[in-house]
Amino acid sequence: MLESGEEHGDREKEKAGIKHMEKDRWIVKVSPEMTAPSLKDNRGDVDRLVGGLRKVLDGGEVSVDFGLTKRIPARLREYGYETQAVLYKGTYFWHLVELVPSGQEDPIYGLAVDLGTSTVVIQLLDLITGEIKDETSFLNPQVEFGQDILARIHFASEKGGLEKLQKLLIERLNEKIFHLTQENSIKTISLVGMCVSGNTAMTHLFLGLDPFWICREPYIPAINRPELIKSTELGIVINPEAPVLVIPNVGSYFGGDLIAGILASGMTHQDEISILVDVGTNAEVVLGNREWLMGCAGAAGPALEGGVARMGMMAGPGVVDKVIADPETGEFRIRTIENKPPVGICGSGLIDLVAQLFLLGMIDLRGKYVKSKCGKRLKQVDGVNHFVLVFSKDSGTGNALTLSQPDIDALIRSKAAMYTILTTVTRMINVSVLDISRFYIAGTFGFTIDPKSAITIGMIPDLALETFKPLGNTSLTGASLALLSGKAREEIYKIRDRVTYVELNVNQEFMNLFSAAKFIPHTDRSLFPSVRAWSSA
Amino acid sequence: MLESGEEHGDREKEKAGIKHMEKDRWIVKVSPEMTAPSLKDNRGDVDRLVGGLRKVLDGGEVSVDFGLTKRIPARLREYGYETQAVLYKGTYFWHLVELVPSGQEDPIYGLAVDLGTSTVVIQLLDLITGEIKDETSFLNPQVEFGQDILARIHFASEKGGLEKLQKLLIERLNEKIFHLTQENSIKTISLVGMCVSGNTAMTHLFLGLDPFWICREPYIPAINRPELIKSTELGIVINPEAPVLVIPNVGSYFGGDLIAGILASGMTHQDEISILVDVGTNAEVVLGNREWLMGCAGAAGPALEGGVARMGMMAGPGVVDKVIADPETGEFRIRTIENKPPVGICGSGLIDLVAQLFLLGMIDLRGKYVKSKCGKRLKQVDGVNHFVLVFSKDSGTGNALTLSQPDIDALIRSKAAMYTILTTVTRMINVSVLDISRFYIAGTFGFTIDPKSAITIGMIPDLALETFKPLGNTSLTGASLALLSGKAREEIYKIRDRVTYVELNVNQEFMNLFSAAKFIPHTDRSLFPSVRAWSSA
Repeated sequence: MLESGEEHGDREKEKAGIKHMEKDRWIVKVSPEMTAPSLKDNRGDVDRLVGGLRKVLDGGEVSVDFGLTKRIPARLREYGYETQAVLYKGTYFWHLVELVPSGQEDPIYGLAVDLGTSTVVIQLLDLITGEIKDETSFLNPQVEFGQDILARIHFASEKGGLEKLQKLLIERLNEKIFHLTQENSIKTISLVGMCVSGNTAMTHLFLGLDPFWICREPYIPAINRPELIKSTELGIVINPEAPVLVIPNVGSYFGGDLIAGILASGMTHQDEISILVDVGTNAEVVLGNREWLMGCAGAAGPALEGGVARMGMMAGPGVVDKVIADPETGEFRIRTIENKPPVGICGSGLIDLVAQLFLLGMIDLRGKYVKSKCGKRLKQVDGVNHFVLVFSKDSGTGNALTLSQPDIDALIRSKAAMYTILTTVTRMINVSVLDISRFYIAGTFGFTIDPKSAITIGMIPDLALETFKPLGNTSLTGASLALLSGKAREEIYKIRDRVTYVELNVNQEFMNLFSAAKFIPHTDRSLFPSVRAWSSA
Repeated sequence: MLESGEEHGDREKEKAGIKHMEKDRWIVKVSPEMTAPSLKDNRGDVDRLVGGLRKVLDGGEVSVDFGLTKRIPARLREYGYETQAVLYKGTYFWHLVELVPSGQEDPIYGLAVDLGTSTVVIQLLDLITGEIKDETSFLNPQVEFGQDILARIHFASEKGGLEKLQKLLIERLNEKIFHLTQENSIKTISLVGMCVSGNTAMTHLFLGLDPFWICREPYIPAINRPELIKSTELGIVINPEAPVLVIPNVGSYFGGDLIAGILASGMTHQDEISILVDVGTNAEVVLGNREWLMGCAGAAGPALEGGVARMGMMAGPGVVDKVIADPETGEFRIRTIENKPPVGICGSGLIDLVAQLFLLGMIDLRGKYVKSKCGKRLKQVDGVNHFVLVFSKDSGTGNALTLSQPDIDALIRSKAAMYTILTTVTRMINVSVLDISRFYIAGTFGFTIDPKSAITIGMIPDLALETFKPLGNTSLTGASLALLSGKAREEIYKIRDRVTYVELNVNQEFMNLFSAAKFIPHTDRSLFPSVRAWSSA
């Protein structure tokens, strides 16, 4: 088995990136320039504090919510008018969140949340240093009332359904947040900000907004750009005055998770054309540079359903995520997650395996098994060919791990769909897929996928290997960035406003391209010169 | 008896003034420019509405509170995307209050409230035409727990005291507001704004802010400039999103009621120096013009306590508010409120009476009865001289209405205090009281007081009679103006920032001036040439 340490290096690098961002925080802790009242300066307590804060906040206006107004006088007297204040910047002015006594050097914290349809990830961030203090994740409890988005939207329209879905999620979030505060010895009151990234339906359910019209023509979300919301209004148990930033969406099928992804990629700061591909439940593709952004999302028609999704298959202990064949011995070496005995195979392992089978001539360009080349590893079960990757004696389940002909066929449909989407999207702006200078892959899937294997099967274009940049959970990274940086927060709205969303049109041209892509690597082998070289090696 | 119709003419004039103000409303009802969603325009519902509103609000940003966000999509669909919106302008942007279907021509209403220590007055205003629809008043229920401000501040510091005082007031306000809606067939939801004017302690109790430090050195209010507060946050039962504007204060002893008064007087728009005098529980004086404003408030030391207050005596049916003596017959003619049989005498009646007694030589320049001139109207009760104004047979109470020597002595102390305050305040800026070009009198007291009588007793300076302008309830008028006009609302903050508040220093110089003023009209009769002329007439 191979070492499993490689991916951690990448993840650490990604996390470290946040530390180097510009320190233009929009949630801050400052010491107001203020003196105690006297007969010569008898300004009101709140006005005194606001005046003192203005001096240190480069002249910005400061707004104090009425609830806090009531508590300020007693606090100021308790602290002898020596205080520190936590504030966040809204659209036009700063808002007070909390007062703490001077000299108290406790950090302030925030939460970045990736609100996935199946998994929710929470990152605990030190809002002063930008450091990631902790991370936790949980299965989205809404799964109980609907595996996919459509099922949940349906459930939400039943009596009390929306409230139930929202409550489930918020309660689970609160539990996890409570654990984070316990494990990191943090006061709830020190959690002073939150940024939430998710697809449009998920953010609607999080906000308790009716998602009914999201999936009905003309596909209207309740809202594209939610304003900052106080945590109490959502029932999130952090500092009650803490702002919750929800990443805006472009439409029902282009959510805040993708906007966060674009932010995290940095593609809008480059002159060259980049592409960002997020393979989750749907294949989502963004193409663009400093000047323009084009987004394309949604499943590519019924012909492709299920296929693309399969590659996003959940990884877990014992799942094979990497396969290498020894060209001399013909032996297959596998890597499993946590080095546990193999129990299954995930997307990246599957791509590796099919690429190896092709390079070894064990499958032909249609993906059909070549019996003569497969030898004893090919078995027939109910008349269907199965390739045995792991024999039952080596398996963690007691059963052999096999790859059936239908499995390969499904993968080929998936990879053909992906390649066709990429081709179609780039054609829209009259460039070739080969003109892309950076190919960002979002999702943890991106860390394990071997670009060489993906090129070999013709899933992604035959670009120089260094063109491919795995980015991990860009929804989470984008949320962290927007929580930590005022510029990043502004940028999400600029990105949102600039994205041209294009509905993928599964027309005859698309189907022709799709048919041509259903070969390994492609009917037009000139598109994949590297594969020819690798095959002959 | 005289006719009692005169004062109504003045009040109507005052009310009519509001109608002529500029129509720069900050609470408005508009029709957004908006189309229904389509595949070509699939913006979110809230964003669609906000975009449509921006077009008609001269490009202003529009903010939608999260609570409303949730209700918008269903409302828009119910109204077929043909809607009108009620909004108010905050510091930087417009805020949505309510959506109503297009074509519904119901007006929107607001409430101006004068939060008096003893009486609370509510005015119901049409926020489109500016018309006063109704007015009602009630005794401040907090009186039960403290007649004056100090007693209430004391009560507020007891356990639960502040909450009790606030609750009492808010509940009574809500009852009265409910009656106003019933009597005028108005929906509660159509009440979309409120402006509250009161002294600093009263607004603190209204807002539930601890007034403890208001009466303790160095006299710090909790807040000078409250932000707009949502009605729900205060428990006011009008439209829950309606803004409540509380007129700001300058300090503990210079409240929003005076700021409102300055606004209502218009003195800050004039080049000449005006003076605004509000005789309520305290004597409050503002002096200024377009360029500067000086305010002076508070009781003028223990020597004067009670005296000034007496002149603000509550008026009611049967109370004598005007007294004229027939110089030929020596008969006294009285006017009573509502022409009811006389039951008492209020400030303006008292000033008239003492002025007449002086002009007829019945009292001397020290205010002492001249027995030889008074004839049968002078009686001794327990060795104290009493002047009989109304004999028992003509009285509404069955008892004679009399003016005792101590009553006159008290009035002389009061008038001397007032004149001394006016002299002191004008001296501070090196002008004479005779340089004042407009003398505004706030309070309903101003409508009944006869300037000639007040000059005769030396209470106010001997200015041309047309200099005196009674303004009525300026606290209420100012609140109405600030509720109806964006410019007026801005102006209250400008006024607040410009007022120089001067604590009245009851020093030796003040006491010398006070002693000199304790004669009728004054020891220096050259200051009152008119009185000499009137006396010899």
